[in-house]
Amino acid sequence: MERQDKDLAWMLQFENIAWYEDGAVRILDRRVYPIEIRKVECRSHHAVAQAIRDMVTQSAGPYVAAAMGMALAAYECRGKAESEQLEYLTAAADTISHARPTTSKRMENVTEACLKAAGEALAAGSDDVSETIRACAVEMNNVRYARIGKTSKYLAGLFPSRGAVMTQCFGETIVGMMLREAKLQGKDVRVFCPETRPYFQGSRLTATVAHDMGFDVTVITDNMPAAVMKNEGIDIFTSAADVISGDGYVVNKVGTYQIAIAAQYHNVPYYVTGSPDAGHPTIDSVRIEMREPSFVLQAMGTPTANQNVKGYYPAFDITPPDLVSGVVTDQGVFSPYKLADYKVDATGFLV
Amino acid sequence: MERQDKDLAWMLQFENIAWYEDGAVRILDRRVYPIEIRKVECRSHHAVAQAIRDMVTQSAGPYVAAAMGMALAAYECRGKAESEQLEYLTAAADTISHARPTTSKRMENVTEACLKAAGEALAAGSDDVSETIRACAVEMNNVRYARIGKTSKYLAGLFPSRGAVMTQCFGETIVGMMLREAKLQGKDVRVFCPETRPYFQGSRLTATVAHDMGFDVTVITDNMPAAVMKNEGIDIFTSAADVISGDGYVVNKVGTYQIAIAAQYHNVPYYVTGSPDAGHPTIDSVRIEMREPSFVLQAMGTPTANQNVKGYYPAFDITPPDLVSGVVTDQGVFSPYKLADYKVDATGFLV
Repeated sequence: MERQDKDLAWMLQFENIAWYEDGAVRILDRRVYPIEIRKVECRSHHAVAQAIRDMVTQSAGPYVAAAMGMALAAYECRGKAESEQLEYLTAAADTISHARPTTSKRMENVTEACLKAAGEALAAGSDDVSETIRACAVEMNNVRYARIGKTSKYLAGLFPSRGAVMTQCFGETIVGMMLREAKLQGKDVRVFCPETRPYFQGSRLTATVAHDMGFDVTVITDNMPAAVMKNEGIDIFTSAADVISGDGYVVNKVGTYQIAIAAQYHNVPYYVTGSPDAGHPTIDSVRIEMREPSFVLQAMGTPTANQNVKGYYPAFDITPPDLVSGVVTDQGVFSPYKLADYKVDATGFLV
Repeated sequence: MERQDKDLAWMLQFENIAWYEDGAVRILDRRVYPIEIRKVECRSHHAVAQAIRDMVTQSAGPYVAAAMGMALAAYECRGKAESEQLEYLTAAADTISHARPTTSKRMENVTEACLKAAGEALAAGSDDVSETIRACAVEMNNVRYARIGKTSKYLAGLFPSRGAVMTQCFGETIVGMMLREAKLQGKDVRVFCPETRPYFQGSRLTATVAHDMGFDVTVITDNMPAAVMKNEGIDIFTSAADVISGDGYVVNKVGTYQIAIAAQYHNVPYYVTGSPDAGHPTIDSVRIEMREPSFVLQAMGTPTANQNVKGYYPAFDITPPDLVSGVVTDQGVFSPYKLADYKVDATGFLV
């Protein structure tokens, strides 16, 4: 059992996403990376849920943190009777999976897999299943890496041999893998990263990973994507997704919708990576998380407005299928209107 | 001769834009307002040009600062022979009007008016024309206020009786006047202000003025306009312009183009305020200023990215006439395709 895909950029290494060890989960704090490199140490599964809520980690990070948080919960109730441990872990799964509303269906898949592994180990006589759950977390992530590896081949295959790619926010593994794959396929692409306010995931995370991997990377502010498409020529806009509903709607970091509109206006294709979400056959069941409005009245901790005005902060927006050129999955590229053709399997729940 | 329109918000008061007195031009530093209220004191006309270049002031601020800078130049050469003073002032006009490239045609109109007033006063025997030029600056601004007053009536007339208006950047006088006019016309409008990276003019300036004038104002990040149009319902998008070319293209703060695209997608009309620029019969003669790229790698002075990546910073973008619902002027609302119908007069050079 390998812990990670060794040749990805440093910040994509497994231990730097989230790692359970010695009664604590340590999570790389993506809110400050790369300006500062520090980890948030969670000494209880409640603290893990809070860290997810506080956006210490994002993209696929919360899924890894959730599984590691379940390992920590198992450590918290070790040595108790089997039924007590199961009850404790079930409550922990509920707490962790509902840390943020928009992705709770996928989070439930993660915590349920942990519960299943724990149940089997407890039934077999173990009285501390924390290691079992950590192994399950690593295994789930490796399965995810394998799936995204396939996805990245299809995505990089859509890149021109020489050109420019625009991203949005930080899609984590897919960013590292699509860039590695682009190199393998000999695609000479420049990367344009909108900064992604209010957390600057694009400028801090995506741009850093692309730079670390040797790409020509340019950071732009979030009001520039259309101007860049017009002035510089963008060949592809791509993003990951927090949810892709069965009817082809893409839920992703706020701003994705606006760039997709600008892309359509400039005839730039928009390819989203991921897979249709079995928990959301249509977009109607997705609840968009509204975060603390005042967070948009500051940047990196410095006030940017009179603090008496209102803010507005939907964490995600919804891009309709008519703006999506294709959904790039491990099974190939699908029309957003043909997602029923995607074969969901047991590992189909993670981006 | 009144110095200003007294009932506009505090930061629109004449002395707070730029004011010549006692051998110095003092300019309100809009780069930090309202977080900090401070003035940049310029002791030479070269310092005024530098302040304009450094974006101490923006929107119509540079035109006022330019005229006040000419008054300071006159103070610098006071007492010299008429021909020497004229030569000195002509060189100063060139320095000041070319501080920034995109708006230099309009700036030349301002400095030429100052030169004309100075020439007449010198011919009449004055040996210090600094007061003459300051009076000319105030007069030009009052003419501008009168024109924008008319424009604001047409603009507010387009507002719904109850609804929401989205702005972009800080159009200065038109912002204060359109809001005052909206109140006078009984229009109950909420104001949504995209923050306008990288300088945050929207969140710092427009939002503050709207708040000071008693409006319900919401700041959003620059990746949210499309989502707000979709979720909250925006009735009108409006902005000022740095240039409106005779063929109907709008040059304004970068981001305007992207919001205009999103507006068209949501059937939200986009009304630009200003007047066609006699110096630019077509868009081809407009040069878009490229500013220091690394400025987009920080926010309010804090780094937001690995400082080894590239930045990209066009100060303005160009919105084509097919995205413009109307050009709102002091003579009424024009189609961007019918700007030849606008009657240019001697005061037709300022937004």
